Amino acid sequence: MNPAEPSVPEPTPEEQVALDRLYADFGAENLMPLWTQLDGLMPEHPTPEARAHVWEWKRLYTLAQRAGSLVPVGRGGERRAIALANPGLGGRPYATPTLWAAIQYLGPREVAPEHRHSQNAFRFVVEGEGVWTVVDGDPVAMRRGDFLLTPGWHFHGHHNTTDTAMAWLDGLDIPFVHHTDSAFFEFGPDEVTDRSTPDLSRSERLWAHPGLRPVSALERRANSPIAAYRWEHTDRALAEQLALEEEGHPGTVGPGHAAVRYTNPTTGGDVMPTIRAEFHRLRPGAETATRREVGSSVFQVFDGDGAIVLDGVEHRVGRGDLVAVPSWTAMRLRAESGFDLFRFSDTPVFEALHQARTAIEEEPA
Amino acid sequence: MNPAEPSVPEPTPEEQVALDRLYADFGAENLMPLWTQLDGLMPEHPTPEARAHVWEWKRLYTLAQRAGSLVPVGRGGERRAIALANPGLGGRPYATPTLWAAIQYLGPREVAPEHRHSQNAFRFVVEGEGVWTVVDGDPVAMRRGDFLLTPGWHFHGHHNTTDTAMAWLDGLDIPFVHHTDSAFFEFGPDEVTDRSTPDLSRSERLWAHPGLRPVSALERRANSPIAAYRWEHTDRALAEQLALEEEGHPGTVGPGHAAVRYTNPTTGGDVMPTIRAEFHRLRPGAETATRREVGSSVFQVFDGDGAIVLDGVEHRVGRGDLVAVPSWTAMRLRAESGFDLFRFSDTPVFEALHQARTAIEEEPA
Amino acid sequence: MNPAEPSVPEPTPEEQVALDRLYADFGAENLMPLWTQLDGLMPEHPTPEARAHVWEWKRLYTLAQRAGSLVPVGRGGERRAIALANPGLGGRPYATPTLWAAIQYLGPREVAPEHRHSQNAFRFVVEGEGVWTVVDGDPVAMRRGDFLLTPGWHFHGHHNTTDTAMAWLDGLDIPFVHHTDSAFFEFGPDEVTDRSTPDLSRSERLWAHPGLRPVSALERRANSPIAAYRWEHTDRALAEQLALEEEGHPGTVGPGHAAVRYTNPTTGGDVMPTIRAEFHRLRPGAETATRREVGSSVFQVFDGDGAIVLDGVEHRVGRGDLVAVPSWTAMRLRAESGFDLFRFSDTPVFEALHQARTAIEEEPA
Amino acid sequence: MNPAEPSVPEPTPEEQVALDRLYADFGAENLMPLWTQLDGLMPEHPTPEARAHVWEWKRLYTLAQRAGSLVPVGRGGERRAIALANPGLGGRPYATPTLWAAIQYLGPREVAPEHRHSQNAFRFVVEGEGVWTVVDGDPVAMRRGDFLLTPGWHFHGHHNTTDTAMAWLDGLDIPFVHHTDSAFFEFGPDEVTDRSTPDLSRSERLWAHPGLRPVSALERRANSPIAAYRWEHTDRALAEQLALEEEGHPGTVGPGHAAVRYTNPTTGGDVMPTIRAEFHRLRPGAETATRREVGSSVFQVFDGDGAIVLDGVEHRVGRGDLVAVPSWTAMRLRAESGFDLFRFSDTPVFEALHQARTAIEEEPA
Repeated sequence: MNPAEPSVPEPTPEEQVALDRLYADFGAENLMPLWTQLDGLMPEHPTPEARAHVWEWKRLYTLAQRAGSLVPVGRGGERRAIALANPGLGGRPYATPTLWAAIQYLGPREVAPEHRHSQNAFRFVVEGEGVWTVVDGDPVAMRRGDFLLTPGWHFHGHHNTTDTAMAWLDGLDIPFVHHTDSAFFEFGPDEVTDRSTPDLSRSERLWAHPGLRPVSALERRANSPIAAYRWEHTDRALAEQLALEEEGHPGTVGPGHAAVRYTNPTTGGDVMPTIRAEFHRLRPGAETATRREVGSSVFQVFDGDGAIVLDGVEHRVGRGDLVAVPSWTAMRLRAESGFDLFRFSDTPVFEALHQARTAIEEEPA
Repeated sequence: MNPAEPSVPEPTPEEQVALDRLYADFGAENLMPLWTQLDGLMPEHPTPEARAHVWEWKRLYTLAQRAGSLVPVGRGGERRAIALANPGLGGRPYATPTLWAAIQYLGPREVAPEHRHSQNAFRFVVEGEGVWTVVDGDPVAMRRGDFLLTPGWHFHGHHNTTDTAMAWLDGLDIPFVHHTDSAFFEFGPDEVTDRSTPDLSRSERLWAHPGLRPVSALERRANSPIAAYRWEHTDRALAEQLALEEEGHPGTVGPGHAAVRYTNPTTGGDVMPTIRAEFHRLRPGAETATRREVGSSVFQVFDGDGAIVLDGVEHRVGRGDLVAVPSWTAMRLRAESGFDLFRFSDTPVFEALHQARTAIEEEPA
Repeated sequence: MNPAEPSVPEPTPEEQVALDRLYADFGAENLMPLWTQLDGLMPEHPTPEARAHVWEWKRLYTLAQRAGSLVPVGRGGERRAIALANPGLGGRPYATPTLWAAIQYLGPREVAPEHRHSQNAFRFVVEGEGVWTVVDGDPVAMRRGDFLLTPGWHFHGHHNTTDTAMAWLDGLDIPFVHHTDSAFFEFGPDEVTDRSTPDLSRSERLWAHPGLRPVSALERRANSPIAAYRWEHTDRALAEQLALEEEGHPGTVGPGHAAVRYTNPTTGGDVMPTIRAEFHRLRPGAETATRREVGSSVFQVFDGDGAIVLDGVEHRVGRGDLVAVPSWTAMRLRAESGFDLFRFSDTPVFEALHQARTAIEEEPA
Repeated sequence: MNPAEPSVPEPTPEEQVALDRLYADFGAENLMPLWTQLDGLMPEHPTPEARAHVWEWKRLYTLAQRAGSLVPVGRGGERRAIALANPGLGGRPYATPTLWAAIQYLGPREVAPEHRHSQNAFRFVVEGEGVWTVVDGDPVAMRRGDFLLTPGWHFHGHHNTTDTAMAWLDGLDIPFVHHTDSAFFEFGPDEVTDRSTPDLSRSERLWAHPGLRPVSALERRANSPIAAYRWEHTDRALAEQLALEEEGHPGTVGPGHAAVRYTNPTTGGDVMPTIRAEFHRLRPGAETATRREVGSSVFQVFDGDGAIVLDGVEHRVGRGDLVAVPSWTAMRLRAESGFDLFRFSDTPVFEALHQARTAIEEEPA
């Protein structure tokens, strides 16, 4: 807050003494005045401490590999996950104030034991295959381009069935849950409960049919029952949007910009109550409008090269690179080649609480 | 209503005279007493005038063919549709008090002109192909096993691109809308607005991807935006349910009984606000429990042979046959061969109005 | 439906013979063609069979009094209710195709025995007092201006504690429930289960506090838990709207036209899923715009004199008079004196099913 | 998290060197491993940093008085509000991680200028009167026992019309909004926009009628349109619950424990999307069960004496005293005299996001 003109005269020395004594007495009683800190607490628009930041996938991967040879994955640490720590957030392992993003690395034949927690989690696979994640007893294959869910309070473990390591992106609402003191956790078996390696999970066989629901499961659910959103469907949906645009029909979000949202087929809404996930594809040379949104997000480049312009600063990124976008940052994407990006955000929180806002700024010249 | 014991003495002759005069005066003033008709108006459970009834597809088809050579399809009649007229409903073209079901027949190269109406409509194709229905300008191919939507107030026309006639099932909420005086209708062009014949409609290219929504269209809709639910998806979803059952996992509704509901991906609910549509598959020899439901429905056998047992009466049916099931009828299915059935009902009306009830009766001995 | 120009030539005599044979064969198979009846089934806008009609309260009351001396109220007839039978609806006791409206008359010291049914019911009291309706064991006083609920499947009976007869308006969704075959009914005790005569029902003591809910009952309910909406609250809310208008603030629906809707405090929506209830007050000389709505309604004049103009025909009405308004009728109110009207309608049905439409026509000259 | 048995051997000195280098490289790349901090981030149940704490009203009031003579209220500080700073939260002015609670003090004839912000706010008045808060131009009187709303983005200012100071409790979601970077703020006029002093606000005259809504305002709203919940209604609703209990009927939450929730009459839900508010009344000697809930809350004693037992520690409190209750704290109330308490909490956040949990523990012996 920045009042137009201060109407308050400076205190006299005597007043200052009295004020100092008052503030000391406040402190002794666990009290704090609003008027000394209004600007920081109630700014005119969001002024995040988190910063826009890029992490290069190649460096992440190399460090994860080193961790792979030094740090075991089992009980004691549960997961070999290395979190993005936003440089504005004082050394906490938070990509943004609400979102956790990490590279998780599983060496050849390794097993990450089962557990469950109230935090919502997903995986997104930018490269590799050969790991199955077992979610409430249902083995789910992980392959490049797949988006996989582990909603809150579902047991889950992972096992690598190959002789090659695999790494992927983990996304969770850990910072939000931690800040709001709503975390629960429970250990499961040390081994995954089903070591079979089917091509499709049972959840997909029941649920991943367009517009169809099993009559045996008709209730609304807080989380999507689809354990894996496969790349072939995402890719085809995006290709069709661009093809429709070429034929002169609606479908894309903006010129040369296709996008799909991953949804919960029992509600049509987001996959999990605290996390939105989308996939964006830009044609070569396409550029989006500049937008600001309440809430923070993380992008991972899936394919191609381009730039993410944040508050006017251009960040050039390529395959696997991760970008944290703080709340109310002016954001624009620009494709050099075809440009495919995965994005997740905390927007469902603000929509549920009627705090969401969006501002579209001038189109780029 | 059937009171346990009549506590009212017979009127004396003098009282009867006074009563007759009173009832005549009621009539003159457009009044009617409750007490003379309570049993009919407020029964202990639904006592439908509609009857359980079977229409054989072969006979329907033969009659539709005869109509094809005698009755034009264009302006003046709009559609060559022949409705099931439930024998209990006094000669009205109503399959049940709320649902319309008709065979529609389109001769070689014929065109059914465009119009729109507030009534919700769908098509289900038990045999044939070569017709495209054009819904708000989007051509939708019709093929065996497909379920196609024309929600209220969408323009639509049909054209047969082949030298062979084609017939299909039309389902609408005409009786419900007529009874509640909520019908609107508007003529469109005599010709369909797009004569192209794509394999997939634009609506499917945008919407028929499991769990994915276009970011360009995120609002909730009263009706499903998917114009066609293709047989390949329905068939696969049913096959997977039975396979899961064989592997010892949940998925089917009951032993040997797979079922999917067609849904609106923007809500997870029914495809249209007044009509529920489902597809049921029974293994050879399977038999369902006996159920009663508030609300009426119509089955069409898609494949195989079996029986529909209604209030204890067995109706043997085969491919294409149609069965009207009145409200609160005790119903059971029994498969001889594998048995595939399409079903539509008015249940969403009762769920929306908190009037739905279901009773499961004893399993068959 | 009224096609712009018939494109179909008259059949030749030979064709007519073939057509006659075809239509007879249709009839034998319980089939009916759409093309012979399209205009009636799918009109351009609602064309109700029900008619706008006025019933005078004085005549109703006199006839009810005569019934009081001739017809007992107990088991065998359950209720001494005399229904408005819309002259367009072929002698059925329906005020409109969906709504039942009746005068119910309870003589001195009489008891109407307890029962329950799936139909939703309410009472509105235009004059008199001294009867308690007992709803699921909770005695609810009935007084002039009160609006009282008996939602579906709640046991209820009435007893007159005085030596004076009392009559009131009963409103139900009997025609809708009958047409859709969703009626259930159950007898209760011959006597009311609680003969106490408190000023306020227990339901009001728990629920009728503005903006407050008991923490012991937090779930959403299909029906309002408030058994009685008292006249003092309705009157005050209407008076405040007119006072706010005079002070230059928003609040009224239109100039000189105050209106409140009775609502379910657990949802903010209508009191029952099939029935909307409102109270309207016009200043002397005020006149509303002309509106058409999908769905039918019934007005009862509570106080004052004025006119209800329906499709251009003016109906002058006074205290207690009842008016049936069919669907899509152009309607306008005009107050001579101050003019107070109770109204109920079936609009929630159309809103729930996404079939609601409203048209506002020109203001009166 | 506290694994049953550590399965990981201690690193060798060489490994430790490599690990130290790895962790340093993590730091340089803004990365942090999960395994070194899992216990804190993902505990078995919430382990709040916030502490249970009591602030005495008398001390608060005395300090506020001193601030009144030293600190102006106008532009430059906007409000003379002194916040509860939870001793576990590192010196931030947060009663809990999500909730702000402050005493606000307005001297004789003082005016707090108008502004608006996205944070949701309320006032609760434990003593005094004579201040009007003006919310979007509507003057709202403040009196002992009243609960007053200023939902997000409504302009508001306060003015004291008397020669006596007045102080009250302010509650907001400032910490939640700050942490999630969703704050917006805008200055308004230095003076309040309407200096009239009506007994009831216009919002109450439109909205505070039990079960009635103005037909001119039928949409659902995110926030309650009732600006003030008056003490007379709250008191009466609580008294009726205890009277019903005495008569043997349901109504109270537990023996001798009445409670109402303040609600939004357009939805039946909480008054604002992030804040729940309730009022609790215990009979002399009554005691509640022990409960844990996800989410934090603040109590203010309105009248009487008693104890709040938090994780087994008894805190004796009297009129005006404030108590912060962190998430998942075991909580029980015990009344000495009759005991009236206002409570607000962040529970709607967890309900909206499907993270709410409650545990009821053993009844007190």
